[in-house]
Amino acid sequence: MADTIAATRHTSIVPVEGGITAPTGFRSAAVHCGIKASGALDLAVLAVDTFGSMAGLFTTNLAQAAPVLVSKRHLDINQGVGCAIVVNSGCANACTGETGLANARQMTEDVGRALGCQPEQVLVASTGVIGVGLNIDRVGAGIHEACSSLARGNGSVAARAIMTTDPFPKEHAVRVTTARGSFCIGGMAKGSGMIEPNMATMLGFLSTDAQVTPTMLRRVLVESARDTFNAITVDGECSTNDSLLAMASGTSGVVIDDELYPALLDGLLAVSRPLALGIVRGGEGATKLISVTVYHARTVDDARQVARTIANSPLVKTAVHGADPNWGRIVAAAGRAGVPFDINQVTVRIGGILLFDNGLPRDEAAPQAEEILKLDTIDIAVSLGAGEAGATIWGCDLSAEYVRINGEYRT
Amino acid sequence: MADTIAATRHTSIVPVEGGITAPTGFRSAAVHCGIKASGALDLAVLAVDTFGSMAGLFTTNLAQAAPVLVSKRHLDINQGVGCAIVVNSGCANACTGETGLANARQMTEDVGRALGCQPEQVLVASTGVIGVGLNIDRVGAGIHEACSSLARGNGSVAARAIMTTDPFPKEHAVRVTTARGSFCIGGMAKGSGMIEPNMATMLGFLSTDAQVTPTMLRRVLVESARDTFNAITVDGECSTNDSLLAMASGTSGVVIDDELYPALLDGLLAVSRPLALGIVRGGEGATKLISVTVYHARTVDDARQVARTIANSPLVKTAVHGADPNWGRIVAAAGRAGVPFDINQVTVRIGGILLFDNGLPRDEAAPQAEEILKLDTIDIAVSLGAGEAGATIWGCDLSAEYVRINGEYRT
Repeated sequence: MADTIAATRHTSIVPVEGGITAPTGFRSAAVHCGIKASGALDLAVLAVDTFGSMAGLFTTNLAQAAPVLVSKRHLDINQGVGCAIVVNSGCANACTGETGLANARQMTEDVGRALGCQPEQVLVASTGVIGVGLNIDRVGAGIHEACSSLARGNGSVAARAIMTTDPFPKEHAVRVTTARGSFCIGGMAKGSGMIEPNMATMLGFLSTDAQVTPTMLRRVLVESARDTFNAITVDGECSTNDSLLAMASGTSGVVIDDELYPALLDGLLAVSRPLALGIVRGGEGATKLISVTVYHARTVDDARQVARTIANSPLVKTAVHGADPNWGRIVAAAGRAGVPFDINQVTVRIGGILLFDNGLPRDEAAPQAEEILKLDTIDIAVSLGAGEAGATIWGCDLSAEYVRINGEYRT
Repeated sequence: MADTIAATRHTSIVPVEGGITAPTGFRSAAVHCGIKASGALDLAVLAVDTFGSMAGLFTTNLAQAAPVLVSKRHLDINQGVGCAIVVNSGCANACTGETGLANARQMTEDVGRALGCQPEQVLVASTGVIGVGLNIDRVGAGIHEACSSLARGNGSVAARAIMTTDPFPKEHAVRVTTARGSFCIGGMAKGSGMIEPNMATMLGFLSTDAQVTPTMLRRVLVESARDTFNAITVDGECSTNDSLLAMASGTSGVVIDDELYPALLDGLLAVSRPLALGIVRGGEGATKLISVTVYHARTVDDARQVARTIANSPLVKTAVHGADPNWGRIVAAAGRAGVPFDINQVTVRIGGILLFDNGLPRDEAAPQAEEILKLDTIDIAVSLGAGEAGATIWGCDLSAEYVRINGEYRT
């Protein structure tokens, strides 16, 4: 523990340009292969120059898309050592049966052939409409084109190619400097509806030039996702395709051991948090980021459960949208979360303004809270008065625009 | 079981006029006492001429409003024998602490004094904004006025007095004729957001002139609510005030025993179903009633859980709103319901049109389904291929109007 603190204390983490290709040892490319009718970029390849470590976290939905099934299987076979990730947007390749599985496998074969590695060393991710098949010939041609134009510094283009209804691309990178040298971590992600803990129609990609074993890469991915990608929600939906994939090239020469693990974790958190919050802020129809912190809970799980129920409550989300300091809806959502507490011990704050205090309204503060609710970032804090644990979940407001986007998405 | 079938076979159930006061032995009145700024009716009293049986089901929310706490306590004390129910709309009297409790008790005292019964023989229900106190003097004057104008045939006025944002009043009544005589069942209910199984901001009131013991009245209330009031959802919210109260006057002289129990149950279902569906159809911003039936599930609970997840899915609700036959969202919602099944055994139908068949899309049928989705009642049927059990949950679409109503409700 003393080592951990020492390592963390002597670590600096500074944002850098370059997104997913900010770390050395990675190249990427993005093309339009014909999936999106708009002609926008719809296919990206991320490759590591030599073989690297790989790890992945996937949707918990029972209906798992073909690319999810293929990537999970490949990680089993290659034991976390691989060379590339291929991603398409505009088509989820989900609920597509045996043909869909064959197409996802074909994508990894096409990348493997172009880069001189085994298909099992390639992971695949897709996002877009469910139940529509890929035009695998066009995708194959796109993969060929992308693999022949791989380059460093293409990160921003790749971040655009994985978007669906996302209003803006999401990428971030940091340089982590430790007493034993520095390494880089980059990332990109896409949202933007069907977003709920345990992944979401979220695709996230992380890269680092630190030298990390596959086991440790998986461990740090799980730990960093808990309070970032798995602590966000747009609409409580968990998709068929959610994937969070990480690759480590090792080219910085900095070997991550137990001593440097906290520096790697801090770096991953520093990259993942803005990506995760970007997903929420760019959520379909979202106009406000809502941070819900529940504290004085019996356990962290209790705190998460209550925070999640509040963040997913349509009545809370619409009240925030309308700048209505309706703490009653927050209390009602907390009360139906399935977590025991005493309502007379509860306090509710919006933007630090106390509105409900040990079971009683403080409505004289409502006008102040109303002003705060007009901002684009809203903090809701709820104390359950039941213990010492706490957790934060990030969500967004519910607007008429969400209804418009999702009523018209496919037609 | 043979008796049950015989009794049911010889029962006729016919709709009648009169709502909550259709059964003999009941009188009601409604007044405006000053809670609603609009001047609309906001207080109703339902009284039984002589003492009758009473039963109640209440919200499972931890944050229970004062009237819920008081009514539960009164049912404990009076052992299911009482004389009246008082209801106000426009103020939920929830999260109002000791003063709120005192006010709810005061309402039962005022009714008791006016009708010559004990406060504990009176139940109370409230609906409206959370966290606002009642003006108990005005409410007292309103109760006095209502109790002096109680009359048969006032059911429709009472049904209007319990409304908040409901677009229309909900009342229904039937006459049940058996080989041993006939009796009447009446009812009224209000929605219209914060509606989810295990009650909702739903107030429901049922009356009958059958002679029923308090124990049997409670049993039939639980059983009839399971597939009616507890099988609906507007937005997945469970409120602080949900109450379903029943009273039996016994004045028809028909004694409900085991033989006639099925007739009573069928009658209650016949009254409760249109009230429950009326709540959904009148849900905030709702333009379509969605019936989600899940069958071939391992257990009824599994079927309910999957149906509820689909009915509450914002992506399914917006797709139906936009008449988009997006079965992929239905499959994705089913997949995150926490119930095990094999996606390759699943079929999805919208309005009887097969769109997803054993894991594969049938998109050629999409145009037909799109036409059906333009109607105002939509049937979604999902077979899990996992067993023999089934269940239906009723929900509604999600519209921009829901956002508008709930973003502006209080301010």
